[in-house]
Amino acid sequence: MAIASVCSTAQTQIDEILEEFKGRTIKNVFYVACGGSSALMYPSKYFVDRESSNVTAEVYNSNEFIYRDPQTLGENSLVILCSHKGKTPETTEAAKFAKKKGALVVSLMYVETAPLADESDYIVNYSWAPPGELDPHPEFMNYAVLYRLTAGLLYIKEGNDKYEKFVNSLESMDAVLRKVKIQYTEKAKAYAQEYKDEPTIYTMASGSNYGIAYSFAICILMEMQWINSHAIHAGEFFHGPFEILDENCPFILLMGLDETRPMEERALKFLQEHGKKLLILDAKDIDLTGFDEEVKKYLVPLVLNFVLRVYAVELAEARNHPLEVRRYMFKVPY
Amino acid sequence: MAIASVCSTAQTQIDEILEEFKGRTIKNVFYVACGGSSALMYPSKYFVDRESSNVTAEVYNSNEFIYRDPQTLGENSLVILCSHKGKTPETTEAAKFAKKKGALVVSLMYVETAPLADESDYIVNYSWAPPGELDPHPEFMNYAVLYRLTAGLLYIKEGNDKYEKFVNSLESMDAVLRKVKIQYTEKAKAYAQEYKDEPTIYTMASGSNYGIAYSFAICILMEMQWINSHAIHAGEFFHGPFEILDENCPFILLMGLDETRPMEERALKFLQEHGKKLLILDAKDIDLTGFDEEVKKYLVPLVLNFVLRVYAVELAEARNHPLEVRRYMFKVPY
Repeated sequence: MAIASVCSTAQTQIDEILEEFKGRTIKNVFYVACGGSSALMYPSKYFVDRESSNVTAEVYNSNEFIYRDPQTLGENSLVILCSHKGKTPETTEAAKFAKKKGALVVSLMYVETAPLADESDYIVNYSWAPPGELDPHPEFMNYAVLYRLTAGLLYIKEGNDKYEKFVNSLESMDAVLRKVKIQYTEKAKAYAQEYKDEPTIYTMASGSNYGIAYSFAICILMEMQWINSHAIHAGEFFHGPFEILDENCPFILLMGLDETRPMEERALKFLQEHGKKLLILDAKDIDLTGFDEEVKKYLVPLVLNFVLRVYAVELAEARNHPLEVRRYMFKVPY
Repeated sequence: MAIASVCSTAQTQIDEILEEFKGRTIKNVFYVACGGSSALMYPSKYFVDRESSNVTAEVYNSNEFIYRDPQTLGENSLVILCSHKGKTPETTEAAKFAKKKGALVVSLMYVETAPLADESDYIVNYSWAPPGELDPHPEFMNYAVLYRLTAGLLYIKEGNDKYEKFVNSLESMDAVLRKVKIQYTEKAKAYAQEYKDEPTIYTMASGSNYGIAYSFAICILMEMQWINSHAIHAGEFFHGPFEILDENCPFILLMGLDETRPMEERALKFLQEHGKKLLILDAKDIDLTGFDEEVKKYLVPLVLNFVLRVYAVELAEARNHPLEVRRYMFKVPY
């Protein structure tokens, strides 16, 4: 699809879906996808949890969703799915399953159409750029589309005023990411040189940033770099995982601006006392000019995710292991 | 507390709580704890998801629960917490927080009383034995108490008939675990000898068994053995993590009897095709005589967890690294 049209197409698609919300009762939202597409839904669940006393939200892997067969799924459900090329078989099956249950089915994909689209009531085509590259329309990236739909739902159903604040703040996303790229590229190069031979790198975060840590662990480190990893929840860290820490064990800690930050700060203190190989990515160090004060915390994961992508590119370069190399994905049957 | 009294005390405590359920509206259940105490709540959420179209369930780390401050938490909420010695500060805080919101607060602990008890409306003292040892009252182990409360809730509110089936089936837990210990001890010794020098061991499962995989990864491998680990969801495996697999990468796969088993079977096929260092623990190999057909799938995690504890003991022995050794927990400030 031509890049120039992404913006207005996505806007039109979202407007139609918000219009559809008006005529339906929606009691719960199920965010359903696989891997990286699932990880990007965690911030939206965080938003629903914090903002609504009527609507519940769940994040499920596509097949887990189908087999688990949650009994609260039905005619009053909104199911939001995502698959980059719209061809993930489990996600297409999950859309079919949700439709059969009477739910409203909305699917996000980068491509214009795909099998997933055929099983959905509505689709949104999001904007996208490869890791580390600047997206011409980051205000319509997958994470941003999810917030537009989620905050839009709560705006229509409950008058939540953060929808408009998201829309306005997202106008500044491009400027924020441009500055971030300049700020972190040299740092990422140095990090990559220092850590390129590590067999294991842990990631850690909490709240709205946990999904970003999960995405970097499973999609970048494990999938694209074949480095052992595990996204540790910053609150769970102290109840088992922290015993693995010593001066040779690398950790990447994300520090956001949401309400769960005290957990990340506690983890930081411990990491600094007992670890040495640390990368701390703190949203407080980033210029977020243009983001509304009230939704800034929710937008941080989108920015930290971009920062991590800058690191991914440099890690791949330093390790001579391109991000596109796979041994199994799309190559062998599974 | 004297072991002989656990059984009748816990039964009386549970009966009082079920009686309390009768007079209250309960729309949602929050399972709140840290680390291993949190991991054991996953099967109960699976049960609620599958069995009730009215009640929703969430599992949260204690501090995540407090800071996230879910807006659906209120007077119509049941909050079930757990802390082995009732002294986990975050969990005590979470109980206080939940009470302030008007929720019904029920806490599980092994000890008779503790700070957590002071902040709770009701407590249940569960039965417990150290890893690998036979519990004199496994029908009242923490997992079992959680099912009694959860199925009890759905029995009282919705007439769910699985409560009685749980109660009857749990009578056979002791016999099942005794056979399991004999069946797996030599296998565990051999596994421990073969894998004692591995720096990383992954665990994998789905559905009601995922929490058990998580518990083994963070509490046994990372905390008690200082071995790198990560509990991979069997459906997510194919969307990133599987790229880490080669013939040198050890995986422990749990195979249960619940509806998500096809995901575990798919993972098994792939592991066998592309990996070599595999431990497959399949509930189909275990004699579950006495478990009712309809709740057998839900009880499998309790049995697989015991099997994993048998492996934990042998791993510790072979590695000359007692399960009790810590470098940080209860030793340094955090």
